[in-house]
Amino acid sequence: MIKARVTITLKNGVLDPQGKAIEGALGALGFEGVGHVRQGKVFDLELDGEDRARAEADLKAMCEKLLANTVIENYTIALD
Amino acid sequence: MIKARVTITLKNGVLDPQGKAIEGALGALGFEGVGHVRQGKVFDLELDGEDRARAEADLKAMCEKLLANTVIENYTIALD
Repeated sequence: MIKARVTITLKNGVLDPQGKAIEGALGALGFEGVGHVRQGKVFDLELDGEDRARAEADLKAMCEKLLANTVIENYTIALD
Repeated sequence: MIKARVTITLKNGVLDPQGKAIEGALGALGFEGVGHVRQGKVFDLELDGEDRARAEADLKAMCEKLLANTVIENYTIALD
């Protein structure tokens, strides 16, 4: 069994209102000097088998087909 | 300036219907052997200054106060 973590982040230039809201809320809570807050998603998965190359290829396909919107999002895959 | 990444994941035992839905969708797309899908959040932030110890303490406070719901979520902080 292979454990993997897929991290999805917005591409540069894509507006992130949720990140902006968090930035504002942190400022309102008294945290100063916090900038460029961007929110993303993370998926932890377990894949059957021990073939890491195949797992990586499968994860890439999952990102392209379902997990990420590749028009506006980047993804990174990390195997445990 | 310090770049940081905060990763928020659900604690073990907390139900994750969104993760379950993704698991089902991956199965329906033909990806076999995928299990234990858990969704989390990731925040990329920039903090003014170069004091890494202070940045880490600030980020911990941000997680406790705003970014994470520590009843059901764990957080990890990584400085760049």
